[in-house]
Amino acid sequence: MTGASGITTPGTDARRRHDPNVRGFASDNYSGVHPEILAAIALANDGHQVAYGADDYTAHLQEVFRGHFGERAEAFPVFNGTGANVVALQSLLPRWGAVVAAESAHINVDECGAPEKIAGIKILTVPTPDGKLTPELIDQQAWGWGDEHRAQPLAVSITQSTELGTCYTAEEITAICEHAHERGMLVHMDGSRIANAAATLGLPLRAFTTDAGVDILSYGGTKNGLLLGECVVVLNPDAVRDILFLRKMSMQLASKMRFISVQFEALLTGDLWLRNATHANTMAKRLEQAVRAVEGVQVVRPVQANAVFALLPREVSERLQKTYRFYFWNEHTGEVRWMAAFDTTESDIDAFAAAIAEEMAKQG
Amino acid sequence: MTGASGITTPGTDARRRHDPNVRGFASDNYSGVHPEILAAIALANDGHQVAYGADDYTAHLQEVFRGHFGERAEAFPVFNGTGANVVALQSLLPRWGAVVAAESAHINVDECGAPEKIAGIKILTVPTPDGKLTPELIDQQAWGWGDEHRAQPLAVSITQSTELGTCYTAEEITAICEHAHERGMLVHMDGSRIANAAATLGLPLRAFTTDAGVDILSYGGTKNGLLLGECVVVLNPDAVRDILFLRKMSMQLASKMRFISVQFEALLTGDLWLRNATHANTMAKRLEQAVRAVEGVQVVRPVQANAVFALLPREVSERLQKTYRFYFWNEHTGEVRWMAAFDTTESDIDAFAAAIAEEMAKQG
Amino acid sequence: MTGASGITTPGTDARRRHDPNVRGFASDNYSGVHPEILAAIALANDGHQVAYGADDYTAHLQEVFRGHFGERAEAFPVFNGTGANVVALQSLLPRWGAVVAAESAHINVDECGAPEKIAGIKILTVPTPDGKLTPELIDQQAWGWGDEHRAQPLAVSITQSTELGTCYTAEEITAICEHAHERGMLVHMDGSRIANAAATLGLPLRAFTTDAGVDILSYGGTKNGLLLGECVVVLNPDAVRDILFLRKMSMQLASKMRFISVQFEALLTGDLWLRNATHANTMAKRLEQAVRAVEGVQVVRPVQANAVFALLPREVSERLQKTYRFYFWNEHTGEVRWMAAFDTTESDIDAFAAAIAEEMAKQG
Amino acid sequence: MTGASGITTPGTDARRRHDPNVRGFASDNYSGVHPEILAAIALANDGHQVAYGADDYTAHLQEVFRGHFGERAEAFPVFNGTGANVVALQSLLPRWGAVVAAESAHINVDECGAPEKIAGIKILTVPTPDGKLTPELIDQQAWGWGDEHRAQPLAVSITQSTELGTCYTAEEITAICEHAHERGMLVHMDGSRIANAAATLGLPLRAFTTDAGVDILSYGGTKNGLLLGECVVVLNPDAVRDILFLRKMSMQLASKMRFISVQFEALLTGDLWLRNATHANTMAKRLEQAVRAVEGVQVVRPVQANAVFALLPREVSERLQKTYRFYFWNEHTGEVRWMAAFDTTESDIDAFAAAIAEEMAKQG
Repeated sequence: MTGASGITTPGTDARRRHDPNVRGFASDNYSGVHPEILAAIALANDGHQVAYGADDYTAHLQEVFRGHFGERAEAFPVFNGTGANVVALQSLLPRWGAVVAAESAHINVDECGAPEKIAGIKILTVPTPDGKLTPELIDQQAWGWGDEHRAQPLAVSITQSTELGTCYTAEEITAICEHAHERGMLVHMDGSRIANAAATLGLPLRAFTTDAGVDILSYGGTKNGLLLGECVVVLNPDAVRDILFLRKMSMQLASKMRFISVQFEALLTGDLWLRNATHANTMAKRLEQAVRAVEGVQVVRPVQANAVFALLPREVSERLQKTYRFYFWNEHTGEVRWMAAFDTTESDIDAFAAAIAEEMAKQG
Repeated sequence: MTGASGITTPGTDARRRHDPNVRGFASDNYSGVHPEILAAIALANDGHQVAYGADDYTAHLQEVFRGHFGERAEAFPVFNGTGANVVALQSLLPRWGAVVAAESAHINVDECGAPEKIAGIKILTVPTPDGKLTPELIDQQAWGWGDEHRAQPLAVSITQSTELGTCYTAEEITAICEHAHERGMLVHMDGSRIANAAATLGLPLRAFTTDAGVDILSYGGTKNGLLLGECVVVLNPDAVRDILFLRKMSMQLASKMRFISVQFEALLTGDLWLRNATHANTMAKRLEQAVRAVEGVQVVRPVQANAVFALLPREVSERLQKTYRFYFWNEHTGEVRWMAAFDTTESDIDAFAAAIAEEMAKQG
Repeated sequence: MTGASGITTPGTDARRRHDPNVRGFASDNYSGVHPEILAAIALANDGHQVAYGADDYTAHLQEVFRGHFGERAEAFPVFNGTGANVVALQSLLPRWGAVVAAESAHINVDECGAPEKIAGIKILTVPTPDGKLTPELIDQQAWGWGDEHRAQPLAVSITQSTELGTCYTAEEITAICEHAHERGMLVHMDGSRIANAAATLGLPLRAFTTDAGVDILSYGGTKNGLLLGECVVVLNPDAVRDILFLRKMSMQLASKMRFISVQFEALLTGDLWLRNATHANTMAKRLEQAVRAVEGVQVVRPVQANAVFALLPREVSERLQKTYRFYFWNEHTGEVRWMAAFDTTESDIDAFAAAIAEEMAKQG
Repeated sequence: MTGASGITTPGTDARRRHDPNVRGFASDNYSGVHPEILAAIALANDGHQVAYGADDYTAHLQEVFRGHFGERAEAFPVFNGTGANVVALQSLLPRWGAVVAAESAHINVDECGAPEKIAGIKILTVPTPDGKLTPELIDQQAWGWGDEHRAQPLAVSITQSTELGTCYTAEEITAICEHAHERGMLVHMDGSRIANAAATLGLPLRAFTTDAGVDILSYGGTKNGLLLGECVVVLNPDAVRDILFLRKMSMQLASKMRFISVQFEALLTGDLWLRNATHANTMAKRLEQAVRAVEGVQVVRPVQANAVFALLPREVSERLQKTYRFYFWNEHTGEVRWMAAFDTTESDIDAFAAAIAEEMAKQG
C-alpha cells in the first residue's frame, strides 16, 4: 500500500498518486495523517456502533476532554474549523447578536462569510497590529447595548495561536475574558492551532482557556495531525446551551462519529497533540533562524507558533514557488507566510532555507 | 490493533472500546469502514498535498465520476448527506425558491430544518404512499409561478432508493425529470443510498440519473462503506453553477480533501460500491424471507433496497431491542425498520430472524 | 381633493386616478382608509416626535392595547402582516425551532417563504378541513422533542378568523393553548382578521386571546380600515422577549411610528374596529344569503367572518370577473372567494348578487 | 382636528398628544408629513384598488420615476430604508456575495445587522475620513475574486448624501461606478437623503445616479416629507432582477400600496422633493453660520446637506438637551449631530443658535 506514486497496490482499487516525500510550506493542512491517528481509526473499526455520537468512543472522549479542560467541559466533535466556529458562535448569540473579532480573524476573512450567511452573525471587526485583541481594542466595537439599531455585541472571539503566528499569554486572555464578562459578553476561542499555543506557552491547555474564563472553544484537530476533525468544547455550560441542535442544523453532525472521536482520543490521551505541535513550532523556529541569516529577508512578525511571515523580493518568492509551495500573505506588500507542520522535517527546513539563500544570492 | 475491547494496542494511545463482532439492524451507518477503504486512506497519506480540493486525488476523482455519470459530470466531495443536499439545493434555487419533495424525504424530516435554516429553502411537501413522487403528486405543489406571494417551486427532490426502502425505475425518474423540466423546474436526487438502488435495478448509475435527466445528485458514500464522505455531483452543468462557493460557505469544504476523494476512488473505480450494496440488499431480502415465515410478523413495504419495514407486536419489538439495536419507524403504529449494511453477515440475519421467531412464539 | 378621476386638485401635485365608487370582492385590502383613521393621522401631524417608537402616540397605545388584552399586554407596531408574523414567530423559537400550522395558513402559503427565508423557521403543516387546528391535528406534527434530527416543534400558530373564513371558539383556542403549553409549546395567533372573529363571536378580544392562553398575537389593522399597520402584541411577557431587536433586524421598525400608532388609537379606543368588522361580516352574510338563493351556486364553507367561498360554473365566474374583481381560490375545483370589506355597501352586495343570478341564468 | 394637545376632536376617537409647534434637531425623521402629501393620500382614498402594487397609482409612479431617472428606471415602493437597502443588495448579490461599504454606512451601523441576518450579506467595510468611498478605498476590500474562502466582493454601496453630511459629486460617483464595473461589481446607492444631495449639487437626480452608472437606488421618501415610504429604483435592469420576489419575501410588500405610491407622486411630480430638501439644507447652513460665530463651538465636517456636526463642551450639550432634542454622534469625543428637516423654521434655528450661544457663555 505504500509503493511509489501511481502503482497499484493490493487491498484497494485506489492508487497512490502523489510523492509521499514532498512537503511544502503553504499550510499545516497540506500535511497528512499522523500514523498513530491512522492506527486509532483502524482500532475503532468493525462491528456496529450507534451513529451520530452515541457511540463508545464519543462517550469516552468526554473524559479525555475533561482531563484537559476541567470537570465541566463537554466536547462535540464536528467536521471542520468553519463548522466549529459557526456552531460555537451561534450558541453564544441571540439572533440579533454580534461578535467582536480581530480584522484578521479566520471567521472574518477565510470562511466565505459563513458566520453571516449561515448563522446571521454580524462580525464587528477591529484592526490589530498582531492579530490579538485587547480590552482596549474590544472597546472600539463593544458599545451600544440596548440600542435596537445596533447588532448587539454579546461575544468576543479570539484566535489562539493567531492567524498571524502570535500567541496570547494566559494573562492576556484572562484580561479579555474579565473585560468581556463584566460587559455581559461571552468569549469564544478559535483554537484551530491551540496546541501550537500550548507548546509555545509551556502551559496546560486549561491554563489559558477554562481557567482564563473562555466560555467556548473550537478545538483544532486537523492541523495537529488528524485526518479530519475539530471539536466544539463547551467550557462554561452555564452560558452555552443546545450545541446538539446547532451542530445538526449546521450540518456538522457526523454519522460514523466514532472515527472522529477516536482520533481525538489518540491525539489527546497521551502527548501526541503536544509532540506534534512542539515539533511544528520547532521547525518554524529553525526556519526563522535560518532565514534571519539571509540578507534581504526580513522576518516581519514574532514567530510564536508554527508560522513564519517574511518579506523578500517578490521575484525571489516567485522563483521559489516553482519548487516549494507557499502563499503570498499580502499581495500588496509581497509578504509571504511559511507554515511548518507536524510532519515537516529538519531536512525540509534546511533545504528550503538553502534554496531561499540561493535565490536571494541570484538577486545580486 | 485489532484485539479485544479495551486492551491497549501498540501504535496509538487510543483503545478499542467496542466489540467488533456485534452488529445490529438500526441503521446502515452504524457500520464501520470497509477494509479496502481504509487501505486507500493509508495510500493517500504522507507527504503534502494541496488543501481544499486542489490535490491529485480529487483531480483524479473527476475521471472516476465521469466514468459513471458521463463526460459532463463534476464531483464535489463534502462531509455528510445533509451537507450534500443543502449545497445541491442551493445551487438550483434563487433566494425565493422552493423545492417539491415527498413528505417522508430526509431533507424534510431528518435534517433539523437545515434546508430552511441554513439556506432559506422552503420545502413543499406531498404525502406519498411509498416515498416516491410522481408527476401527478408533484403537481399538487408545482403551481403559482410568477406569483410573488408563493415561494417559487423551481426544483424537485427525489430520493433513490427512498427513505421507505423503495426504488424508482429509470422510467419513473425520466418521467419526473421531463415533467419538471417542462415546467422550468430542476431535479435533485438525494442518493444517500443510490448504490442500493443500482443494485436492485441492475442498471449502471447513469441510466437512472444523467440519462434520466437528473440535474444534480447527492452521491452517498458513508452508508456504502466509507469512513465519511458524500459527493455533490453536478450532472447538468448548464443548470447548476457555483458549487465551489456554496460548498465553502455551507461549511462543507474539507481541508485534507484527498482523504475523502481517495475513499471514493476506492469505492467507485472497481465494483466495491456495487458489491457492498448488493450484499446489503441481499441481506435485507434474506431477512424479509425469514420473517415472512414467522406468523404475526407483517412486512409492510416492498423490500427494494436494504431496508425491511415490519409490523409486529410492540412488546416483541421491545424485547428484541434488549439484544438487537433497531428503531421504531412509527411510534403510533409500532412499525419498525430493520436495515442491512455492507458488513451484515448471513449469520447476523439468521440469528436475528431466529430471535424474532422465538420472541413471537412467546407471545402465544 | 375629492373630484372625479384624473382631475387636478389644489394642495398637491398628485392626481386622483381611480373611481372612488368602484368596489369589488377580491380582498379586504383592496379597500381604502376609513375617514376616522385619516383624521387621526392628521391629528398626529406637525411638530417633531421622537422617531422609532419613542413618541407620545406609541406610548399611549400601550394603554389602549392593555385595555383590550389585559394589563400585561405590550404592543409593537409594524408595517404588515407578514412582518408581524415573522417577528412574532422568531420571538417564540430558538434557531432550531419549528412551528405547527394548518396547511392553509398564510405563513405557509402566502408569504413567499419569508418565515423560512428570513428567519429560518420550519413550518410543520397539517391538512385541515376548515383551516382550524385542533389538539389532535397538532399532534400529527408535535413530536420528536429532544431528537436533534428533527426541527423542534416549539410553537403552534393559528389564524383567527382563518384563511377559510371560519372562526375558532374561545373554548377551541383554550384547548389548543392548554395542549400546546403542556408540551412546552407556545402559541401564536395570526390575527390579520381578528376583529372579524370578535364580531362573529360576540366576545371581547381578550376572551379568545389572553384569557385563552395565547402567548403572542399579530393584530391586524390594515384589513380593518387602516392605511397601513399591524401590531405584534405580546400577551405573555414571561414567554416572549426581545421584540425590539427582532422588529428592527426584521426591517419592520417605522421611523415615524406615531402615524401607525395613532391609527390604532383611532381604531381601538372606541368601537371603530368592531363597527368596521361587524359591517364587513354583515355584508358577507348578505351576500351568502343572496347567492344561496341562486340555483347552481353552492356556498362551500361556513360564513363565519367576512369571506364567502362558493362553487359555480367557471365560465360564469370568468364572465363576472369582467365587471367585478375576485379570485379563484382553487384553480382545480373552480372554487372562488368573495371578500367583504369595511367599506362594502349593501348596494354593492345587491348589485353583485344580481349579476351572479343574471350570469347563472344565462347558463341555461 | 388640529386643536391643542390632548383635546378631543370630532371625526376620530384619537387625541392629539403632542405640541405641534415643538421641533428639535435630533433627526429629519422626527418631522411629520408635508401637507401636500397628506392631501395626496386623501386623494387616493375611497373605492377599491388592486392590492400589492397592481393599482393605478403605482402604475403611474413608473412614469414619474422614469421622468427623473431615465426610460429604463423601474420603481418598487417599500416601507422603510433598511428594507429598501436589503432588498436592493440582495438583487445584486449571489448567496456568497459581499458588498464594499464605508464603515460609517447605515447598512453597517444602523440596521441591527439586517443585511447579514436577513439576507446573509457580508459587508466589507473601509474606514473613510468623510463617509465617502473612492476607487482607492474600495480597493482595500475589492480583491480575492474566485477564491472560495472569501465572500465575493460583487457590489459597492455608497450613501448620497452620506451619513456624515457630505455629498459625492457626479464625477466622484462616475469614477466609483466605472471602477466597480471594470471589476465586475455592481453599484448600489443608499439615497435615504438623495434629495438633499441633489439640492446641494444643483443637478437633476439622474445626473449623479443613472448617468453616473449607479445600478440600483434606495430612494428616500420618509425624511423628505412622506408619512412613510421608500422606493427601490432599478436603474440598470440588465444587472438587476427579481425585485418582486425579493420585496415580498423581505416583508416589504405593502397591501394598500396606492397610499405609498401616491405620496411619491405628490413628492416627485412637481418640485416638492426639491423644495423640501433645499429648505432643510438651507436651515442647516443657517445653523452652521450661526454656530461658527459662537466661540468654543467647532463645526467639524463640511455642511453639504442637512446635517451639522459640531464639537462643543459636553456639559453644554447636556444642558441644551434639556430643551432641544439631539444626539451625541460620538460618545467618546462628544461630537454632536444637528439635523434640519423640511419643516424646520428659521426661528427654530435662530432660537437654537441663541440657546447654544447662551449656554456657551455660561461656561466662562
